[in-house]
Amino acid sequence: MTKTNPGRFFEDYQTGQVIRHAVPRTVSGGERALYHALYPARHALASSDEFARACGLKAAPLDDLIAFHIVFGKTVPDVSLNAVANLGYAEGRWLRPVWPGDTIRSESEVIGLKQNSNGKTGVVWVRTRGLNQSGESVMEYVRWVMVRKRDPEAPAPETVVPELAEVVDASGLVIPSELNFSAYDFELAGENHRWGDYEIGERIDHVDGVTIEEAEHMLATRLWQNTAKVHFDATNREDGKRLIYGGHVISMARALSFNGLANAQMVVALNAGAHANPCFAGDTVRAWSEVLDKAETAAPGVGAIRLRLVATKGDSGDFVLKGEDGKYAPEVLLDLDYWALMPV
Amino acid sequence: MTKTNPGRFFEDYQTGQVIRHAVPRTVSGGERALYHALYPARHALASSDEFARACGLKAAPLDDLIAFHIVFGKTVPDVSLNAVANLGYAEGRWLRPVWPGDTIRSESEVIGLKQNSNGKTGVVWVRTRGLNQSGESVMEYVRWVMVRKRDPEAPAPETVVPELAEVVDASGLVIPSELNFSAYDFELAGENHRWGDYEIGERIDHVDGVTIEEAEHMLATRLWQNTAKVHFDATNREDGKRLIYGGHVISMARALSFNGLANAQMVVALNAGAHANPCFAGDTVRAWSEVLDKAETAAPGVGAIRLRLVATKGDSGDFVLKGEDGKYAPEVLLDLDYWALMPV
Amino acid sequence: MTKTNPGRFFEDYQTGQVIRHAVPRTVSGGERALYHALYPARHALASSDEFARACGLKAAPLDDLIAFHIVFGKTVPDVSLNAVANLGYAEGRWLRPVWPGDTIRSESEVIGLKQNSNGKTGVVWVRTRGLNQSGESVMEYVRWVMVRKRDPEAPAPETVVPELAEVVDASGLVIPSELNFSAYDFELAGENHRWGDYEIGERIDHVDGVTIEEAEHMLATRLWQNTAKVHFDATNREDGKRLIYGGHVISMARALSFNGLANAQMVVALNAGAHANPCFAGDTVRAWSEVLDKAETAAPGVGAIRLRLVATKGDSGDFVLKGEDGKYAPEVLLDLDYWALMPV
Repeated sequence: MTKTNPGRFFEDYQTGQVIRHAVPRTVSGGERALYHALYPARHALASSDEFARACGLKAAPLDDLIAFHIVFGKTVPDVSLNAVANLGYAEGRWLRPVWPGDTIRSESEVIGLKQNSNGKTGVVWVRTRGLNQSGESVMEYVRWVMVRKRDPEAPAPETVVPELAEVVDASGLVIPSELNFSAYDFELAGENHRWGDYEIGERIDHVDGVTIEEAEHMLATRLWQNTAKVHFDATNREDGKRLIYGGHVISMARALSFNGLANAQMVVALNAGAHANPCFAGDTVRAWSEVLDKAETAAPGVGAIRLRLVATKGDSGDFVLKGEDGKYAPEVLLDLDYWALMPV
Repeated sequence: MTKTNPGRFFEDYQTGQVIRHAVPRTVSGGERALYHALYPARHALASSDEFARACGLKAAPLDDLIAFHIVFGKTVPDVSLNAVANLGYAEGRWLRPVWPGDTIRSESEVIGLKQNSNGKTGVVWVRTRGLNQSGESVMEYVRWVMVRKRDPEAPAPETVVPELAEVVDASGLVIPSELNFSAYDFELAGENHRWGDYEIGERIDHVDGVTIEEAEHMLATRLWQNTAKVHFDATNREDGKRLIYGGHVISMARALSFNGLANAQMVVALNAGAHANPCFAGDTVRAWSEVLDKAETAAPGVGAIRLRLVATKGDSGDFVLKGEDGKYAPEVLLDLDYWALMPV
Repeated sequence: MTKTNPGRFFEDYQTGQVIRHAVPRTVSGGERALYHALYPARHALASSDEFARACGLKAAPLDDLIAFHIVFGKTVPDVSLNAVANLGYAEGRWLRPVWPGDTIRSESEVIGLKQNSNGKTGVVWVRTRGLNQSGESVMEYVRWVMVRKRDPEAPAPETVVPELAEVVDASGLVIPSELNFSAYDFELAGENHRWGDYEIGERIDHVDGVTIEEAEHMLATRLWQNTAKVHFDATNREDGKRLIYGGHVISMARALSFNGLANAQMVVALNAGAHANPCFAGDTVRAWSEVLDKAETAAPGVGAIRLRLVATKGDSGDFVLKGEDGKYAPEVLLDLDYWALMPV
């Protein structure tokens, strides 16, 4: 009997099942330093204790995407080892900052199952929660993946397709209770434009590009203890390429968006996301954003802004997204829809 | 007179000599984060303060191999700068966990000398100890290397070949006095198999592979302040290749062994080790293990398991080790014999 | 109207103007660990809390060059985004150690302006200060860069060329008030030669070489939140090469100089510096030093030593610097003039 983890197949999931994912993780300033080395991340709130204190927080939280990656990484051995495709995200919300010293673990509830008509695969929906050492939720999101069946003859489960919000409603955004942007220092943040300066429909080309190296995406992906072999083993694909973890592209694009959106300090919701095309070492990643919506919040001086963040590769021209056929252009790597907090 | 360190030659060693190695090092969560980025390390005890506390420890210790690498790295300028070959390890024992905040230094005692018959080189045996800021030993091991003579005419020293245990006896394993696996959480550890489930002679293919990049092995090796030029200078060898530090392969293989041995939480002894063939960037490292022995311990819920850990490169087939000639197969990088602690 | 930062052009600077640079940064043991992974840095004072305490300090400060890089990195979006060339450094002084937990920000005063005769560019001199969370200066330096004009027709500003000291006078070196090398442990420092053993005019070949990888210089440069695109975007130059941040070469050369100058523990002044030729991935960096001057200090057991640190690429022969034409040889990457503190 093998002792290695073969991963779950489609018939191993039941609706309502809760999976406690393995390997809790204590974080420190080390993860922050590495995040700054791996991405051109410069949002001041996650960089400076002093800046964060001037915004009412006790210290600088770790970048919100560090929390996402750690929570996500823990689910990989249980959810996506036999996944054919990562189909989507919905209803993602950050619920509480993660601080150096916190210990994070994850658990997922299976909330939907649908066998595909070919009988060989099925779609699994899970709602994943990240929890800190006090058992408090730090974030949650729904993700659905297409998973292989072990045995094509296994009976199909009852189809359950969860109803998911297309967008997290602004009223449901969770803002740290202490957060206060009344005395926000725009100069130290690196950007004069504030919430009122951004218009719905406005698009911003973030200008800069980063050419990706194998060593970097592997360091990043391992840092989140995501050990899916396709990211690390050059002998795994026929073309000898290592597929870059989609989350690496998310963090790279979000960091590049500093140039034009430096005041979009905290990511508070993940409405939707598509990894439109695979990314490989040697690709030069660029990013652009579109303002999709804006909302006021009850927190002093804090507005919410809903952004589309698009990552592209190569010299893809301005604001490329989809072709006339409605499909993503081949240069598009990522199409992410999220809410962030910005001083008004 | 040159002020750079030419390293010791064979005639510079005397039996009984104690060398205090330079550059003590204070460690933090930064070393842990980097270790997680460099290797697919997921053993829960070294990852989570909460998990470690549930096992009786005050917090998560740094990975046992971090301690080994730091202690080893400090010896390089004194022991292996003029080494022709790293011949073996024996009697390695971890004596005390290393915690973030500790300051580690190393010292080595020369315990054996034997000039080779060619008169140009000799074998030096040293027993190296790592010490923390309180002067407590954190680990010790014996290592022997073949070292060049400066002057082939120099007289041979008296031959002293130390008697070394082939295996650290299970009764000599040092277990942290607080360690208690009675309430061990197998789900959070990521593995249901426990000490009783492993049989002597059983072999486990750890399945995953990692293709090694130059940047990664150099980051890792420098992190331990091991600055032997052969690892960093591409002009040093005629083939333009940088030789990968053998310890990088040890850590990679140990981390890969999580998949099948996730509960082998602490490394407590290094019985023997051979760097069978050199490793270079571009190699895809895999690993397999064999259960060599098992022993009970006095610590509650804690068993000891003796493992052979073999690292290979390429697609080397199942459980490759030695050819009919008794020599290591060319795909074998590492053959390591160690004791680990596992919940019973 | 674009919301991305186009950088300042020559006509955007006025003498006397003070620019508060964005994105303060809290540092931790994570930055130290990464610095050790990126460079072969082994100076004991910045490596070990215990060693630093034995020298009178409260703990090991972060490497002095970490402070420099962080302070420098923050100036890039304001000072060098449209720079054609980094022309020089002067009057650099380290004023106070940076400790894990400190939050660093930068500000620059424009102290000189001179339009070039071509009317298309001009030289800008800035005095940059790094400040900690208490508003104390941690370092300062003057730097001048050649910057493009946005509009060649814009009128030239009044020419102001600051008078700068060619060398920081030894009497102006700032030494931490607690520093005491009376009980200095030469063995743990890794070097027996002390201040009295170095002679003015003496040159030291640091022997070792490091071949640079793309992933490493990008990790290093991002770590300092220096996001100048030329370092990251392989499509930015026609030859597809990424230019390596000059500070990466500074840190590499300084770390290599450990071998021969291990006791030059603290960098306290930057007298001058030239990035003589560009450095690219694949270059093998070596270093040599020349003792330019020596001075006594009032601190117990502490001497000052003025060093030229030269970084070269390839196998450039001994002590290469300038050709007969007085220009830097093509193999020379860096010519740095600094003061360091050494036990007497």
